[in-house]
Amino acid sequence: MAEKTLHVKGMTCGGCVNSVERALKASGGVQAVKVNLSNGEVTVSYDERMMDVGKLKAAIEEAGYEVVS
Amino acid sequence: MAEKTLHVKGMTCGGCVNSVERALKASGGVQAVKVNLSNGEVTVSYDERMMDVGKLKAAIEEAGYEVVS
Repeated sequence: MAEKTLHVKGMTCGGCVNSVERALKASGGVQAVKVNLSNGEVTVSYDERMMDVGKLKAAIEEAGYEVVS
Repeated sequence: MAEKTLHVKGMTCGGCVNSVERALKASGGVQAVKVNLSNGEVTVSYDERMMDVGKLKAAIEEAGYEVVS
């Protein structure tokens, strides 16, 4: 299991947080997601055999939010 | 081209609106999306040969929002 913290722009309320969490959890291999709305940090635990950082970023961007790092 | 207005729960800010719009536009056959944040109405213009109401609802729900009607 790997863990990665991404910095996400555009989340401004609990609905945004829910949307990002859901998009990530719907991607195969994601076990847990923790979102900090105040600083935009999204920490994801994932199975490296099924998921990688590029795919995590893509899932967040498809949900309409920008990954800045 | 068909048009359908759905009633969506859980959008509480501009970030949510952006997320719903993006999820719909990423679905094949969607031409235009208009979201009214204050009443939750999402009006979608779509090509009936590629898209149907069930798929529109699924796209919104995958983005983390509830379609109530």
